[in-house]
Amino acid sequence: MKYVHGGDIYSNPQLVDFSANINPLGTPGEVVVAIQKAAEHVAPYPDYSCRRLRNAIAQKEKVDAKKIICGNGAADLIYRFVMAIRPQKALLAVPCFLEYEQALRCVGCQVEYYQLHPGTFLLEEAYLDYLENSIDLICLCTPNNPTGISIPEHLFKKIIKKCKEKNIAILLDECFYDFVEPQKRFQPYGDRESYDQMLTLRAFTKMYGLAGIRLGYGFCENEDLIEKMQLCGPPWNVSTLAQEAGIAALELDSYPKMVRTFVREQKKYLLGELQQMGIRVWKTDANYIFFQTRKQLKEDLIQEGIMIRDCSNYVGLEDGYYRIAIMRENHNKMLIQALKKIH
Amino acid sequence: MKYVHGGDIYSNPQLVDFSANINPLGTPGEVVVAIQKAAEHVAPYPDYSCRRLRNAIAQKEKVDAKKIICGNGAADLIYRFVMAIRPQKALLAVPCFLEYEQALRCVGCQVEYYQLHPGTFLLEEAYLDYLENSIDLICLCTPNNPTGISIPEHLFKKIIKKCKEKNIAILLDECFYDFVEPQKRFQPYGDRESYDQMLTLRAFTKMYGLAGIRLGYGFCENEDLIEKMQLCGPPWNVSTLAQEAGIAALELDSYPKMVRTFVREQKKYLLGELQQMGIRVWKTDANYIFFQTRKQLKEDLIQEGIMIRDCSNYVGLEDGYYRIAIMRENHNKMLIQALKKIH
Repeated sequence: MKYVHGGDIYSNPQLVDFSANINPLGTPGEVVVAIQKAAEHVAPYPDYSCRRLRNAIAQKEKVDAKKIICGNGAADLIYRFVMAIRPQKALLAVPCFLEYEQALRCVGCQVEYYQLHPGTFLLEEAYLDYLENSIDLICLCTPNNPTGISIPEHLFKKIIKKCKEKNIAILLDECFYDFVEPQKRFQPYGDRESYDQMLTLRAFTKMYGLAGIRLGYGFCENEDLIEKMQLCGPPWNVSTLAQEAGIAALELDSYPKMVRTFVREQKKYLLGELQQMGIRVWKTDANYIFFQTRKQLKEDLIQEGIMIRDCSNYVGLEDGYYRIAIMRENHNKMLIQALKKIH
Repeated sequence: MKYVHGGDIYSNPQLVDFSANINPLGTPGEVVVAIQKAAEHVAPYPDYSCRRLRNAIAQKEKVDAKKIICGNGAADLIYRFVMAIRPQKALLAVPCFLEYEQALRCVGCQVEYYQLHPGTFLLEEAYLDYLENSIDLICLCTPNNPTGISIPEHLFKKIIKKCKEKNIAILLDECFYDFVEPQKRFQPYGDRESYDQMLTLRAFTKMYGLAGIRLGYGFCENEDLIEKMQLCGPPWNVSTLAQEAGIAALELDSYPKMVRTFVREQKKYLLGELQQMGIRVWKTDANYIFFQTRKQLKEDLIQEGIMIRDCSNYVGLEDGYYRIAIMRENHNKMLIQALKKIH
């Protein structure tokens, strides 16, 4: 299988990995301990409906637990949503996360592209014209992966309105929501306009350093659709360990804020250095940076012991676009030094 | 969501659970330690292609690693196989594990039933007549869940032959293979007649007490089909912890044999006691016992602190059929005492 994502440290164990967007501070110690404790109780099946975890998420997000679904990573929920909706034609605002298209292809869905403005990569009003009757589903990601750029909220409100009119389902991927500064976020889920064909997706993976354990969740106003999603894939999809890790993570009230502060400072450093080198960067609301420069940079950085994400396999991008995770200070400095040397 | 399986200890935490077929000796200590060690490294994504785990399975099963696929539990692979094959019509030999039908319904497949002989529950030659051109896929389970009864190998050979002729895909579920006494097993996978539309399914869940961590695997001669299955669902579906647990489990050469010895003795005790009470039982090759007696037994046993699997929701069964896992001695005795009291 051709692997199309970042984060394959197993093929390149000796490299410093900037290609996966994980919190550089790693998994909180309390969460590691919770997993280790839960490891003593893995013989029984997991709770198929993640009751304790959903209740904890409900409390944090101020959403009814019945409107929440948990997944084996957020990617699991992308596939389940697509299978539950069974769209015939979908619209992707590209470049975007590659799994939307993969999930859509799985159910034989035709995929159309809306090309984000190649200068700003911002979703614009013109997008609304693409929301036609023939479209059954749209996928939107905010902040977008790989660009880190958010959808303007006023535009998003218009999108919901038009999707309601045209009966278009929405997959709203907010997997990097926790990294967005609170004042720049969309209004909280519960205060958003209700739309029963929309799934809002979130992940534990990135903020809590749990990519290896797989845990994501989604909200939807439509409980029937949640139930349908549960049946569109195996039961017991969220392991006991992932459930316990999620519950422990949600108890760490101040952790996300601390991480955001850390990421903010390192982001400032990296953006400044990249710009000084004349590399074209975009402002990012997430824990990663999207930039454009010469070709072949990924290969050359491997020689320097560094793995970055070459974005040329994203629809809507060409050679020369890259994404890097914001890492710890020493690694970020190592990257900048390497870039100064070979750029 | 209506839950249709056994093992929901979360709704009934005070009951002794005979309703899920897990090894009564639980998770081996070495595997628990491996999970706990791996818990310190869950920030990165898992290896999407489970390289080390597949190599370990390949060595144990004497199969090329390229012919192996790992799943988030064996159920994950049932869904992926069905999605990769996209059958229009499937044949189920009922009663059988409920997830086959659920996965088939997910892709809009029509489901037909072959009713196993209601006295013996044995798959018979007459089954061959049902393998017509209109059938795209069959699901077979050996030993069968919930009966514990194996498919005669000579018949299975005829089934493969006819499926090849008629181009019918086969899902062969051997999730309880490890509990079958070696002399009663089908010949090893590598020695079986090759058929590139067959997936053979195995699980770590049952033998190694890992239901809470989710880990199954499958073999298929057809590497293109394996690749297709990998694309029919999210990547990174097997967590880092599950991969490490599987690798550690496969190092425990003598563990399955020890478990079989234990289960064999307890099985003899339970079958003898049930028969003495005049309860109709079937000989089982697995770690569970299927029996028939009066209605309402499940509800009455709950009053005695025991949860068993009421099998009346299996297609092909009616009220009065039950399944119990073979548990530790003290629990088995508790069950027999309760049955003597209320039967």
